[in-house]
Amino acid sequence: MKVINDLIGYKDKKIVQDTNWFMFSLDSVLLPRFVTINKNVKNILDIGTGNAPIPIILSTRTKAKIYGIEIQKDLCDLANETVKVNNLSNQITIINNDVKNIGQYFENGFFDIVVSNPPFFKVYKDTKKNDDIHKVIARHEVYLNLDEIVSIASKYLKNGGLFAMVHRADRLIDIINCFKKYNIEPKKMQFIYPKNGCESNIILIEGRRNGNPGLKILPPIIAHNNDGSYSNDVLKYFKEEEI
Amino acid sequence: MKVINDLIGYKDKKIVQDTNWFMFSLDSVLLPRFVTINKNVKNILDIGTGNAPIPIILSTRTKAKIYGIEIQKDLCDLANETVKVNNLSNQITIINNDVKNIGQYFENGFFDIVVSNPPFFKVYKDTKKNDDIHKVIARHEVYLNLDEIVSIASKYLKNGGLFAMVHRADRLIDIINCFKKYNIEPKKMQFIYPKNGCESNIILIEGRRNGNPGLKILPPIIAHNNDGSYSNDVLKYFKEEEI
Repeated sequence: MKVINDLIGYKDKKIVQDTNWFMFSLDSVLLPRFVTINKNVKNILDIGTGNAPIPIILSTRTKAKIYGIEIQKDLCDLANETVKVNNLSNQITIINNDVKNIGQYFENGFFDIVVSNPPFFKVYKDTKKNDDIHKVIARHEVYLNLDEIVSIASKYLKNGGLFAMVHRADRLIDIINCFKKYNIEPKKMQFIYPKNGCESNIILIEGRRNGNPGLKILPPIIAHNNDGSYSNDVLKYFKEEEI
Repeated sequence: MKVINDLIGYKDKKIVQDTNWFMFSLDSVLLPRFVTINKNVKNILDIGTGNAPIPIILSTRTKAKIYGIEIQKDLCDLANETVKVNNLSNQITIINNDVKNIGQYFENGFFDIVVSNPPFFKVYKDTKKNDDIHKVIARHEVYLNLDEIVSIASKYLKNGGLFAMVHRADRLIDIINCFKKYNIEPKKMQFIYPKNGCESNIILIEGRRNGNPGLKILPPIIAHNNDGSYSNDVLKYFKEEEI
């Protein structure tokens, strides 16, 4: 069922979703608040934008042009409706294509910032994939793997531009190797822990293309209280002004 | 002034220190509790053992033989007194030598576990070093740098053996690169944050020689309460049984 939800905490921002096959996740709220943005930023790319939660939240932080690219037609339709219902057509453009074809739209080095909440899971022959094809593509590395994302981000980032990503904590070593391979120097990381006393499941990481070494590990985010409700750490992300 | 301190929380364990030039730090309490030890472990090496806090705490967790190597003669004297006062001469051996000469004592692949709380700081021409030569050597990469430590650890670890280290969080990328370079696969990491809301300053990391990929990020440790006192996270490390 298609619904228009309030993007809680973001004034009158809305998000168009389909309750049967695509709801945005907490990861997509954390990432656009984590990435470093200054006043000079002119162009931002969101790889695998889904129904566009990341561009919508980014729009509360910057006047830059934001481009969301998404391979799935049905999700692009939701994204376009999301942009329209928020009156953000002047700032946000949704592109329905494989990000590997992004050279059709932009020159190398065009973007100041690239962000992505990419497919998290490696595809193995015996991977038990979710039945719903939309979720399979969004969650598994079917069309796009980690190496490809970082390679594309690096190519279309200007020198000194920033790439920020949310990903699974257990892929950290792969991620750092990929960043290094494509000359993106990790500058800022933050670990998300589902509850007190639990191992981290999610990381936020930002790197600078051809940046100098020097890494900051931001304070941990404990996502849930012991009763399962969102923690104060996370509730801050549902208020536009804080953090 | 030379003093014999109780190793708080470790029954009747003592540590011999010199209040003028060498007191062990919290890092040396966290590391020997962080490293994974099972019953099959027979030989453990502590690189840069100082006055031997790590071997003493390890001795409460294992019957394995523990070797501490330390380049500084004065610190070795303290370490030997520490071993003696704890009646651990049968389990712990202190070697006064540069770890680069360790081949004089052991064959390649001899150890099940190697641990180290190494010098943390890179040496630059203009590095403002602490005046005390003991501290300079213990804290700065004068005699031993990160690459050398990991190289030696890997060489003297048996296949499948574990290397665990405490280090500065801002060196994380270097550390992971060194681990990879010497075929030590990172398996377990833990971030220490000085206070709530602060960036991490210290990390604990453990890797397996020729291990398979797969990383766990353990729950964060917030070291101090807002009033500066040790947090409950840390006080657990001063009780022998807990954690």
